[in-house]
Amino acid sequence: CSSTTPITATLFPGDGIGPEIAESVKQVFTTAGVPIDWEEHYVGTEIDPRTQSFLTWESLESVRRNKVGLKGPMATPIGKGHRSLNLTLRKELNLYANVRPCYSLPGYKTRYDDVNLITIRENTEGEYSGLEHQVVRGVVESLKIITRQASLRVAEYAFHYAKTHGRERVSAIHKANIMQKTDGLFLKCCREVAEKYPEITYEEVVIDNCCMMLVKNPALFDVLVMPNLYGDIISDLCAGLVGGLGLTPSCNIGEDGVALAEAVHGSAPDIAGKNLANPTALLLSGVMMLRHLKLNEQAEQIHSAIINTIAEGKYRTADLGGSSTTTEFTKAICDHL
Amino acid sequence: CSSTTPITATLFPGDGIGPEIAESVKQVFTTAGVPIDWEEHYVGTEIDPRTQSFLTWESLESVRRNKVGLKGPMATPIGKGHRSLNLTLRKELNLYANVRPCYSLPGYKTRYDDVNLITIRENTEGEYSGLEHQVVRGVVESLKIITRQASLRVAEYAFHYAKTHGRERVSAIHKANIMQKTDGLFLKCCREVAEKYPEITYEEVVIDNCCMMLVKNPALFDVLVMPNLYGDIISDLCAGLVGGLGLTPSCNIGEDGVALAEAVHGSAPDIAGKNLANPTALLLSGVMMLRHLKLNEQAEQIHSAIINTIAEGKYRTADLGGSSTTTEFTKAICDHL
Ligand SMILES: CC(C)[C@H](C(=O)O)[C@@H](O)C(=O)O
Ligand SMILES: CC(C)[C@H](C(=O)O)[C@@H](O)C(=O)O
Repeated sequence: CSSTTPITATLFPGDGIGPEIAESVKQVFTTAGVPIDWEEHYVGTEIDPRTQSFLTWESLESVRRNKVGLKGPMATPIGKGHRSLNLTLRKELNLYANVRPCYSLPGYKTRYDDVNLITIRENTEGEYSGLEHQVVRGVVESLKIITRQASLRVAEYAFHYAKTHGRERVSAIHKANIMQKTDGLFLKCCREVAEKYPEITYEEVVIDNCCMMLVKNPALFDVLVMPNLYGDIISDLCAGLVGGLGLTPSCNIGEDGVALAEAVHGSAPDIAGKNLANPTALLLSGVMMLRHLKLNEQAEQIHSAIINTIAEGKYRTADLGGSSTTTEFTKAICDHL
Repeated sequence: CSSTTPITATLFPGDGIGPEIAESVKQVFTTAGVPIDWEEHYVGTEIDPRTQSFLTWESLESVRRNKVGLKGPMATPIGKGHRSLNLTLRKELNLYANVRPCYSLPGYKTRYDDVNLITIRENTEGEYSGLEHQVVRGVVESLKIITRQASLRVAEYAFHYAKTHGRERVSAIHKANIMQKTDGLFLKCCREVAEKYPEITYEEVVIDNCCMMLVKNPALFDVLVMPNLYGDIISDLCAGLVGGLGLTPSCNIGEDGVALAEAVHGSAPDIAGKNLANPTALLLSGVMMLRHLKLNEQAEQIHSAIINTIAEGKYRTADLGGSSTTTEFTKAICDHL
């Protein structure tokens, strides 16, 4: 254990399977001797049946104060007039970049080998503006907003990430052949930033073509940066290549060094409370949080324990074809530490 | 040959490799005794170097009059202020539905077996409205338009297609958890139409999740219907599953029985004029056109000849790992007839 003053981090277990997988993270971190004190807050849609949404000022302040947190799944009711809590957190905390690494897990076979991709998604604007209205009966419109400021910021993050993580190429994903002004502005900003990083290869790829190339040969890509909706789509596609959202971590990056790591899978209400959930995505998100905190030793230790447990294959949860409970799988990881 | 009065059909060979692959279609159709007289028009971006775009009133009238046509690739210059000719044709001719079947070609191996998907894309509105503007310096917006009329029309087409083609399930793809009004209206229209087709299973799938499921297990889907941009993205993803846009056909459907079949791959200027292009996508699009014309016998004959030529593997173009020229591959297909 390299540090002795514990760091306070916010924990939002979330809805459905959230509490169980958060418990798994707490156990693994404790076993590994990670010097973190969790400040746990309940944010979710299942907590208050009257409002179907529960997010307090204290919860937001906790992340703002600690500057670091981990978040489980929060259900997004479709078409009930509620804004998704996941989005509210991103907007309120100004979490402008969502980083989703996707890599093949050794020993867990999919159709693709050696996938190693990083998607970096603009996280605050685009089609997620929330601006929509009915023009006349039967005609509705949504506004997609792209700003120079947000585009430069996420592009800068992507190139900096590439440079500091030994990556060689940044691909900007767009549909500027159709949305010449919005996606055109996004590309313009990426080009400006690219000029400051001559050591990184920069390319632009139309989103439809990108999806086709990703399923044909994901090795063509390295770091991908893109507006909000494309990031939502492509990061799920990439997750699918390596087994799905149950296995892929993510981290939201804000101004002033704020980072909120996040498992982006659903809250799986059907298996909630049954000790069946796979905590891998939240655990790997926790590892991203540790790396952000420069607790690299524990990060690598825990990462290896997770990877090795899955690779050995003796203890796997049902979604990975095994029959272990969440607690058995968690114990197996702890035993690897 | 089942019909004796020839049918007149419009042919737009298009840019780049367009003329070569159109030549291939003409030869195969002639060899098969298809009773079609081609009315050929030049539409493209390479024809007039001053305007970089060439589309005459006569070309549009030709499709309107013949009600049926076949179109090769037309280059879309990015960010030059031109609207894509592909889109101009869809809008001018009110081609409201774009049908893209994606199925595994026997003998051509990819990571996926037995893919058999139909994507049906709304083809006139959504993010393709062309409405964009700068709000203030550094802030731009694009309008996504969804109308009840266009949504009902494409939903109706999708369910009718499913019913008449022995398909069991229609999945509406959306992001209504974010765009509650626009994608919400699209879903509402799909639900209305679904009620008229109780024999077809109807489901709604969020686009990010859909992409993940498609790469994990495409057999989960059957017919997919969706707004314009999602259709652009998902149809390319599906094409990637079976080998790419060089192998997948498409057909645009308009009011009053108009159909414009279309190879949706690029114009491949790098290999244009070198007798290297793969005409499969345009040939299979031609087959869709023949089925639309109820020339089923010739459609199936030509379809088998293409499939068998590729399956045998002796004559394949370079993109499929072979070394045949366009003319050799075309001759091989003709020999199978
Ligand atoms: C739940 C949903 C609102 C969210 C999004 O669209 O961003 C999710 O898909 C994600 O990727 O985190
Ligand atoms: C070339 C481009 C404008 C077009 C589109 O976006 O629709 C193409 O990708 C397609 O799918 O036909």
